[in-house]
Amino acid sequence: MTNPTAAMLVIGDEILSGRTRDSNMHFLAGALTKHGIALKEVRVVSDDRDMIIDAVNALRASYDTVVTSGGIGPTHDDITAESIAAAFDVPITIRDDARAILAAHYAATGAELNDARLRMARIPDGATLIDNPISKAPGFTLENVHVMAGVPNIFQAMVASVLPTLTGGAPLLSQTLRIDRGEGEIAEQLSALADEFPDLSVGSYPFQRDGAYGVNIVIRGSDAAMIDHAMSKLAALFPEATK
Amino acid sequence: MTNPTAAMLVIGDEILSGRTRDSNMHFLAGALTKHGIALKEVRVVSDDRDMIIDAVNALRASYDTVVTSGGIGPTHDDITAESIAAAFDVPITIRDDARAILAAHYAATGAELNDARLRMARIPDGATLIDNPISKAPGFTLENVHVMAGVPNIFQAMVASVLPTLTGGAPLLSQTLRIDRGEGEIAEQLSALADEFPDLSVGSYPFQRDGAYGVNIVIRGSDAAMIDHAMSKLAALFPEATK
Repeated sequence: MTNPTAAMLVIGDEILSGRTRDSNMHFLAGALTKHGIALKEVRVVSDDRDMIIDAVNALRASYDTVVTSGGIGPTHDDITAESIAAAFDVPITIRDDARAILAAHYAATGAELNDARLRMARIPDGATLIDNPISKAPGFTLENVHVMAGVPNIFQAMVASVLPTLTGGAPLLSQTLRIDRGEGEIAEQLSALADEFPDLSVGSYPFQRDGAYGVNIVIRGSDAAMIDHAMSKLAALFPEATK
Repeated sequence: MTNPTAAMLVIGDEILSGRTRDSNMHFLAGALTKHGIALKEVRVVSDDRDMIIDAVNALRASYDTVVTSGGIGPTHDDITAESIAAAFDVPITIRDDARAILAAHYAATGAELNDARLRMARIPDGATLIDNPISKAPGFTLENVHVMAGVPNIFQAMVASVLPTLTGGAPLLSQTLRIDRGEGEIAEQLSALADEFPDLSVGSYPFQRDGAYGVNIVIRGSDAAMIDHAMSKLAALFPEATK
């Protein structure tokens, strides 16, 4: 049985202009892998309605789960919620439960629930809310698409709410062996090992640091005993290597 | 006149599994922005032939330039070069000039130019080589697609070779103003400013750090005087803000 699949859609000009370094992709990749869901594709697009619609429709048709990050705040460039509604061809309106969450929050902090902030209560028809324990404005889930904030600590809190609701598979396990040789020197033996264990993935990741070079070999799969077995064979081939 | 556009395709299981944090996207985004090329989309896919083919064909048809990173080393999981050849429907063979570069390099280092290393001399028909000053194995350019290594220092060196050959537009300039208020409080004024300057992009990026929150407003465009003008107006609205 293969694991469920996921894709991520990162929405934001600031990533594509190089102003901001995205960290949500790396966080989500690790969280999904632990949960036994295979992240198969990530797309990053700008704050552009048509691009968001096209990307979310392509991804939600191809993968079990889609997570988006970014563009759900109160300002004019936050167009994710309305673009997702358009992608699903459903209306989007200010919803009472979302408005109540915001009203309580701003009443408690003494700030005004103005029109801009009310934008954050606009939720596509048929969606369920995703809790935001940090700044309250909720995300939402529409079918297999989970729409989350881009601010990293809020994104992480929303992932923590949603992840337990997703069906996971066998967690993807991995072991790494570092070999201080060139990739080209060990490629033939690695290829033979990969052929011998077709149910495992054998990845080769070269590095160069401070003039030294080498390669990290990562063996991945969901069967711990099989990974142990493959790793023993690999270690026997390169006795000088370090785990 | 609008600036030329670009897309990036990041190839590698290690990014999607969360093992490695990609840094090439952020580097390329900054380099392209400085060169006046608008990075419009990034896709990250695994080491999967069909996914690479589909992604590169979609991107090369939609954008002026495509840059790929990853998967051009000597091991069995390095399938980028052959996948790109398949995407363009051209043959891929070991090419004399690429072989000569590798032969000279391995002769100088006393290592053997074995079959695995020779894989790195396989270049799709019609491509030109991209210089690799670090580990010698070249990247290549086929039409508007530039195929580069994933190891960050090699990727950066290859970007440095290719970038001067690309037609750039007006560099995208930006100025940032930090305002220590909630986004929802300033959203209406921001929106009015964005409407007043349709040729500029006004981005709002909230942050939360150590319990404090605020927002960075980034005004982007290619006309420095217009950005100055918009920034003066913005600063007058929020006299407490800091550049």
